[in-house]
Amino acid sequence: MSTSEFERPIYPQLNAPPRLLLGPGPSLVDPRVLQVMGAPLVGHLDPFFLDLMDRTQSLLRYVYQTKNKLTIPVSGTGSAAMEAAVANMVEPGTPVLVCINGYFGGRIAEMAARYGGEVQTINRPWGEIFPPEEVKAALHQRPAEVVAIVHAETSTGALQPLDEIASIVHELGGILIVDAVTSLGGVPLQVDELDIDVCYSGSQKCLSCPPGISPITLGQRAVQRLENRQSKVANWYLDLSMVQAYWGSERTYHHTAPISMVYGLYEALRIVVEEGLENRWERHRLNAGMLWDGLEEHGLELHVPLEYRLPSLTTVRVPDGVDELVVRQGLLRDYNIEISGGLGELKGKVWRIGLMGFSSRRENVRLLLSALADLLK
Amino acid sequence: MSTSEFERPIYPQLNAPPRLLLGPGPSLVDPRVLQVMGAPLVGHLDPFFLDLMDRTQSLLRYVYQTKNKLTIPVSGTGSAAMEAAVANMVEPGTPVLVCINGYFGGRIAEMAARYGGEVQTINRPWGEIFPPEEVKAALHQRPAEVVAIVHAETSTGALQPLDEIASIVHELGGILIVDAVTSLGGVPLQVDELDIDVCYSGSQKCLSCPPGISPITLGQRAVQRLENRQSKVANWYLDLSMVQAYWGSERTYHHTAPISMVYGLYEALRIVVEEGLENRWERHRLNAGMLWDGLEEHGLELHVPLEYRLPSLTTVRVPDGVDELVVRQGLLRDYNIEISGGLGELKGKVWRIGLMGFSSRRENVRLLLSALADLLK
Repeated sequence: MSTSEFERPIYPQLNAPPRLLLGPGPSLVDPRVLQVMGAPLVGHLDPFFLDLMDRTQSLLRYVYQTKNKLTIPVSGTGSAAMEAAVANMVEPGTPVLVCINGYFGGRIAEMAARYGGEVQTINRPWGEIFPPEEVKAALHQRPAEVVAIVHAETSTGALQPLDEIASIVHELGGILIVDAVTSLGGVPLQVDELDIDVCYSGSQKCLSCPPGISPITLGQRAVQRLENRQSKVANWYLDLSMVQAYWGSERTYHHTAPISMVYGLYEALRIVVEEGLENRWERHRLNAGMLWDGLEEHGLELHVPLEYRLPSLTTVRVPDGVDELVVRQGLLRDYNIEISGGLGELKGKVWRIGLMGFSSRRENVRLLLSALADLLK
Repeated sequence: MSTSEFERPIYPQLNAPPRLLLGPGPSLVDPRVLQVMGAPLVGHLDPFFLDLMDRTQSLLRYVYQTKNKLTIPVSGTGSAAMEAAVANMVEPGTPVLVCINGYFGGRIAEMAARYGGEVQTINRPWGEIFPPEEVKAALHQRPAEVVAIVHAETSTGALQPLDEIASIVHELGGILIVDAVTSLGGVPLQVDELDIDVCYSGSQKCLSCPPGISPITLGQRAVQRLENRQSKVANWYLDLSMVQAYWGSERTYHHTAPISMVYGLYEALRIVVEEGLENRWERHRLNAGMLWDGLEEHGLELHVPLEYRLPSLTTVRVPDGVDELVVRQGLLRDYNIEISGGLGELKGKVWRIGLMGFSSRRENVRLLLSALADLLK
């Protein structure tokens, strides 16, 4: 058989439309980040790259507000970081408690079961949060070595307060995994202060780097748990005991790092540091406030009460009689604006509007409100 | 605790050195690919992106020379594609045969064991290849449901002929996984013609796209095996039964695709198609031939006999009395050229020189030979 049996597929040059990304991620990427994505490659063991890795780790520690040595980007999108957290902490038979109040809590439980965890869940309607007492009661009923909770539920727009959770988990000897995919870099989160053991995120939300690389940090308790495992981590690519040997001082080859993605993340983190974390949190809060006020002025109802509403991701109830898909298609077609529909329980019931990282700008809020008003009139 | 406890790390703008990448990967990336890596992002469910996914799949099918429907890029580097192959084909108790004649065969065996496979290996010294009879004999001694072999061993520079392997494996009811990380797009490989069941690769070798996205293709037997699994795939992120629902007509959200990496891969594949596969194979062969002649003229010995020497990756024996690291450091320092040392059994004994994709150019061969001669004199 020669290659002539296969027709050569001829396609035109890439010509990406200029979307305004106001969905649940990816968010818009700062042009400075886009520029470094196109920088020439170097090898993954090049002294220049090793130095860049150190710098990226130190930037990540600032953004996470942690001194954790094991703070690295995972070579995959946010779900890979979630799986890294689960795969490294859960062994066959590990009792796990997962708090589910949205799509991503459910995903953690699904992963934990695949790694052989004895998974127990507590559940709340989508859009609500867990009072600490509920976690405590569940743990008293059945202790868990690993507890997982989502800080910012991208599927619901609820922001879970974390203040007392870690101490409840630690008192009973467990370790706490926190999903910060839609909060890191946009919503107050201080890993050391909150005493979180494992915290992972994504690049394409409030950090405004393209998807494909995902921060994770492990504190001392989690590192110890990793070192004391009875079995090998069932996932080779995400085995942090090996990955850390590459990111640590040994520089042992594990897998080829996604060079361009590290470039992008480095620049995205530099931008966070330049702006300053507190300023960034404040910007996300202010622009979200402007969005919320505007939506309510248009008579729209927000799904999550103000008290625990997430600034980076807003869920808006679809008014009766409105076809939510038609509105989204109109936004995309007429205005190049992407927002998203609901997932799971909230499918068809809400829109999800993200104001994350570079997307969180006054002009974007103004345009979206105006375009929405046009399409809903 | 306020953020002021954490010093803001201030680092300069990224300033990547202009390396000539002649190691085992990443290879140099065509400026056209670098350019699209910086294109503005779109959402992973944007109609533009869904269309781009279809095109990318169709380009991949041409490059693989296959009609396999399930032909997709995995959202990770080459090792993630390797793990996708293993995790989806191996279940607890699956008898697996892995042919090991280098580092990457060993890695497959390690992964297969983590997924609960009953792993048997056959072994050859690093740099040699397996005669088909040896695979046959091993299978007759102990049948295996899954057989894995490396087409182009990046650690040794040996090119494994595949002609009879698939039919041997199929006769005994097994499925064949082929590692084509360092061959796809640079060395003749026709998946349908060779009747390979699972074939994975990386982006950063002969395809000359940055690392972070990795092609895989599954034929009918493999798809059937996936559908008939007793247990869920133990790896959530790489579970192809779910990933394919996103890449297939259902478009079910699984994980956020690495948008910019798909852009890069699309352009890299367009370049392969423009050049034509056969022309590309020929270019790799010619430039490798020029390298081999030049090295031998300089009195250097090649590790792999001409008969099964890999054009994309050449292993050169380090002459007695030469410190291999000093030479590599000199190449990098004085000429901005990256080549690599040996891995495992060949550590300290060989250099590894890659001529892959955009790196496979006459001028690069000339410069490397001349710089090497300077440093070895």
